[in-house]
Amino acid sequence: MGVVVQNIERTDKQLAEGLGASGVATVHEAQGRKGLLASYMRPIYPGARIGGTAVTISVPPGDNYMVHAAIEQCQDGDILVIAPTSPCEDGYFGDLLATSAQARGVKGLIIDAGVRDVRDLQEMGFPVWSKRVFAQGTIKASLGSVNVPVVCAGAYILPGDVIVADDDGVCVVSRQEAADVLEKARKREANEEDKRQRLAGGELGLDMYGFRQKLTDMGLKWI
Amino acid sequence: MGVVVQNIERTDKQLAEGLGASGVATVHEAQGRKGLLASYMRPIYPGARIGGTAVTISVPPGDNYMVHAAIEQCQDGDILVIAPTSPCEDGYFGDLLATSAQARGVKGLIIDAGVRDVRDLQEMGFPVWSKRVFAQGTIKASLGSVNVPVVCAGAYILPGDVIVADDDGVCVVSRQEAADVLEKARKREANEEDKRQRLAGGELGLDMYGFRQKLTDMGLKWI
Amino acid sequence: MGVVVQNIERTDKQLAEGLGASGVATVHEAQGRKGLLASYMRPIYPGARIGGTAVTISVPPGDNYMVHAAIEQCQDGDILVIAPTSPCEDGYFGDLLATSAQARGVKGLIIDAGVRDVRDLQEMGFPVWSKRVFAQGTIKASLGSVNVPVVCAGAYILPGDVIVADDDGVCVVSRQEAADVLEKARKREANEEDKRQRLAGGELGLDMYGFRQKLTDMGLKWI
Amino acid sequence: MGVVVQNIERTDKQLAEGLGASGVATVHEAQGRKGLLASYMRPIYPGARIGGTAVTISVPPGDNYMVHAAIEQCQDGDILVIAPTSPCEDGYFGDLLATSAQARGVKGLIIDAGVRDVRDLQEMGFPVWSKRVFAQGTIKASLGSVNVPVVCAGAYILPGDVIVADDDGVCVVSRQEAADVLEKARKREANEEDKRQRLAGGELGLDMYGFRQKLTDMGLKWI
Amino acid sequence: MGVVVQNIERTDKQLAEGLGASGVATVHEAQGRKGLLASYMRPIYPGARIGGTAVTISVPPGDNYMVHAAIEQCQDGDILVIAPTSPCEDGYFGDLLATSAQARGVKGLIIDAGVRDVRDLQEMGFPVWSKRVFAQGTIKASLGSVNVPVVCAGAYILPGDVIVADDDGVCVVSRQEAADVLEKARKREANEEDKRQRLAGGELGLDMYGFRQKLTDMGLKWI
Amino acid sequence: MGVVVQNIERTDKQLAEGLGASGVATVHEAQGRKGLLASYMRPIYPGARIGGTAVTISVPPGDNYMVHAAIEQCQDGDILVIAPTSPCEDGYFGDLLATSAQARGVKGLIIDAGVRDVRDLQEMGFPVWSKRVFAQGTIKASLGSVNVPVVCAGAYILPGDVIVADDDGVCVVSRQEAADVLEKARKREANEEDKRQRLAGGELGLDMYGFRQKLTDMGLKWI
Repeated sequence: MGVVVQNIERTDKQLAEGLGASGVATVHEAQGRKGLLASYMRPIYPGARIGGTAVTISVPPGDNYMVHAAIEQCQDGDILVIAPTSPCEDGYFGDLLATSAQARGVKGLIIDAGVRDVRDLQEMGFPVWSKRVFAQGTIKASLGSVNVPVVCAGAYILPGDVIVADDDGVCVVSRQEAADVLEKARKREANEEDKRQRLAGGELGLDMYGFRQKLTDMGLKWI
Repeated sequence: MGVVVQNIERTDKQLAEGLGASGVATVHEAQGRKGLLASYMRPIYPGARIGGTAVTISVPPGDNYMVHAAIEQCQDGDILVIAPTSPCEDGYFGDLLATSAQARGVKGLIIDAGVRDVRDLQEMGFPVWSKRVFAQGTIKASLGSVNVPVVCAGAYILPGDVIVADDDGVCVVSRQEAADVLEKARKREANEEDKRQRLAGGELGLDMYGFRQKLTDMGLKWI
Repeated sequence: MGVVVQNIERTDKQLAEGLGASGVATVHEAQGRKGLLASYMRPIYPGARIGGTAVTISVPPGDNYMVHAAIEQCQDGDILVIAPTSPCEDGYFGDLLATSAQARGVKGLIIDAGVRDVRDLQEMGFPVWSKRVFAQGTIKASLGSVNVPVVCAGAYILPGDVIVADDDGVCVVSRQEAADVLEKARKREANEEDKRQRLAGGELGLDMYGFRQKLTDMGLKWI
Repeated sequence: MGVVVQNIERTDKQLAEGLGASGVATVHEAQGRKGLLASYMRPIYPGARIGGTAVTISVPPGDNYMVHAAIEQCQDGDILVIAPTSPCEDGYFGDLLATSAQARGVKGLIIDAGVRDVRDLQEMGFPVWSKRVFAQGTIKASLGSVNVPVVCAGAYILPGDVIVADDDGVCVVSRQEAADVLEKARKREANEEDKRQRLAGGELGLDMYGFRQKLTDMGLKWI
Repeated sequence: MGVVVQNIERTDKQLAEGLGASGVATVHEAQGRKGLLASYMRPIYPGARIGGTAVTISVPPGDNYMVHAAIEQCQDGDILVIAPTSPCEDGYFGDLLATSAQARGVKGLIIDAGVRDVRDLQEMGFPVWSKRVFAQGTIKASLGSVNVPVVCAGAYILPGDVIVADDDGVCVVSRQEAADVLEKARKREANEEDKRQRLAGGELGLDMYGFRQKLTDMGLKWI
Repeated sequence: MGVVVQNIERTDKQLAEGLGASGVATVHEAQGRKGLLASYMRPIYPGARIGGTAVTISVPPGDNYMVHAAIEQCQDGDILVIAPTSPCEDGYFGDLLATSAQARGVKGLIIDAGVRDVRDLQEMGFPVWSKRVFAQGTIKASLGSVNVPVVCAGAYILPGDVIVADDDGVCVVSRQEAADVLEKARKREANEEDKRQRLAGGELGLDMYGFRQKLTDMGLKWI
């Protein structure tokens, strides 16, 4: 522990933003239903939808010293990802850190712990997905690391990976797969639009997808 | 397992809508404080208030095949009720299924599991009460049943029962009791309005309800 | 059990309101990071921010008889604090009690249990911080006490203490320390404003706080 | 609420005991994977395995008055099933009630709430499956009902149904299906014994069940 | 923060041991059903039953520095009570600290966090009631306090109060009330022995306690 | 998804067993407090302590098809590690699978889901650390993968890594670091034995570790 990795390879910014525009549910499907963070990761206010590149921070429980070190490593289009080394719900992050992060172009925060000053964060337009909202402060006494691999809310995240977050939750896309996943996500969206119109017109999924026959073959009885 | 019951007896639509207008807290009181679903069932957006007739779906964990079969059974004024056979927080339902359900007149969804595309659902005006918001997808591999009795979030629900849901949660009213409960609910409302005005005027519940004497008799000391 | 303490010493109303204006995160820091209620205490609607003096209620599980007795003890600027003697999520409090409380000048409710009629409460502008939203009703069968010390959501609260609550949660400030904490809170706010501007201008916390040297001395490696 | 149903039809005692001997996992499989209570229902001590007929009790939260009324309805081979009408973890049941129940031939208790005196209960050989161990006492102030249908830990249970409980948890078998389920359970056991010996001898399930070909057909790659 | 109170008034040792012998359920009832710690406080091994005087420790999350300072303050018959200032499940305490505590006559540990080396602790006969078993280590970087009032698992505990702990959980008895509570506890025990024998002989609680008439008067129907 | 990696590099068996003998708490400290699985991973019976090499299985929720494929990949000294792709508490594993695994020399199972037949598993001496004990069965319908990297209960695990598990929980040690960690673990143990004897003799940690001066310098007051 105790390193700050300064040069990381980031996913292309256009890709990250494109994935952000597709949204979590679509991206998650497009990459084969992997990369989702735990369902307890909730937005502090509704309506935000972002895609960006991860700057990861491994922090001790109740200690936010390394968050300050991480902000220097951020650039336009990044998303901070904070993972404590043991379970913690303290409020590592508030409006001052958000002000600093926003000044460097950071688009939001993903934290497997607590956050505070949530009203200010909403007014600033700085979205956060967190395990808790909690005013409990942290100390600055121990080292952690910046831009190392982390497990955050059950997902393995490398620095430079794409983070997609919206009202459905948070998903990570690996840098290597981002272009491919974006292409698949866009195909899904195009495909879904057609289905949506047919379903809105009253056509049944049972018929449109051919499920009626398959279910009958499996033994389903209509009684 | 593996049946779709096609002809169910539904509670009268007017009754269901009337109960919906009374709201969960009033209906729950009016029927003797029973029928409430667990408190973890929360609306995906605030402000919705519905009453309708249950189309129930018993589903395997992580498998939403039967939801497609259920939509064909729906008619105007119905509410979908999805109960997995073992605990699951996967996102069984999203905007495409909601589009299809809405096209058939379904008023909303109650699901003891996860839901996704919540921003789209809010924009469509399709309310959902769920255990989780989670983008995790489901498969289509196993049978379940439609319009069978289910236990959903701790409440026993029969197809055709009335579901009432608002910001306070979700409540079920049995088909047999719906008319009686609606009558009692309306009496409560009339009665409450009078009390509300007296309380707003500064009268104390201690006096209005005669509690002061009773509490003193029970031994309460004012010191 | 079974007492209503009628004459309590309240913190000065100006102090309580001043602390409310500073907000939970600032007050909690200003008093040395103590007094915070558990993170599961959440507001029923966003945006409320209050400071007031505690009228405490120790209640049996599932029984709200004493809440009626407590309202008589309330005066302008008070905040109700309800703590059950064993864990409970029933809805002790709804719009009628809120109407009565509001008529006496009560600013809101803190309850380590459930609340209902939340839509009405929002429309009335009566904020509540609770463990649950749950329509489950309570009975009136047993005594409890009003204005005795309670443990509410993990915090020890005396009648007359200051309660501060906003979107970040709930914090208690003891009557004896309120003036001192308010002074410290205001200093923090003044101090933070300056920092906020420097951070917004792009200055790094690493430099502004002198962390860079300290972290290096502790062994942090930039690689 | 407020009834004691005195004459219930019980499943045949031999059937109940036979199902108890088969155990929860086998019975649950034999009846098509239904009837399991939630996984939070745990035994207060390891090693107990029982099968018996349900005497059900619907109780208010924190009130054990009806448990006393229920014991009179018990006979040899029964199992008490206690379900509160709203979530509660109070200790409804201790060594005195167990002494009384045991004197009437009751084999154990299933309770979706708390239990206490667990050391005494273990010494008496009176097994309990509960949501919590908790010394919190209850009151005797309100009515409930005995031998009515209940939802207990997510399972719908009728009086006279068979309860099977062991270290794996708790399962209910309906009276109508008990004989059929027992027969299927016994077939499973006979069948499993043969499989166990082949697996113990080193034969692979992949081969024994013919899974290797099926998995390959589904696209599984060995690399 | 940052004080060690060296001279505390302890409850008389005989009283504490007497209360320990009565056990948690009896003591909790005898003192009017108060003082119970949360039900998540579980023993690391079954069968221990202790009563002793509290040496309290308020600790930062993830930092066990003050536990070392506390051990010096312990004497024969004490029980350590550790309460973190924000929720934490780290393992503050293991076999080395237990060895040191045991050498000073400490009878056990109550901790609203984690503990580790549980197999060693069992072999040493050093019982612990904790929120978690977790090997996660702690640091030694920040001050806390010894022998100050704490809220531990929802109960307010002063140094020198009596702690009673057994398989049913943990209860605190205030120093001032200990003698009175012990007397009441012993009366309960004497009284219970008589009841136990009558119940074991088949007499019903319904009759023995006179509940049959009361329940009938309340409206209970036997059908 | 859908691969079985057949040739993995395993950590040396002696190293794995040596780490197992050191135990979770020691190994976790020795490797710098990382690699611990979540505290909800508990042994199904007390007293087991194992060290072995991971055969990892990524499974769909509620589907144990791939466990059968994994057993063929096991050899003497391995430990199975099962991680579902979304949260699940179903019982993926019981006595038949354990029989088969044990026949191939597998030492135990780590599963971030449920397990059943726990009494049989204890009798067989096949230890399991799991999130739940739950009899709920699984299906065999979908592919997963064997010997791919997984996140299990919050820890990132590669096939061939060392798993250490005992009553304190579960820890992973990477193959590359195993030799170094074992050496450090043994040094800790030697060092601890000396400390244990001094502490048992009554020497205080405050003095033995030199904490008294440091705490005083930090501002701790003895009063």
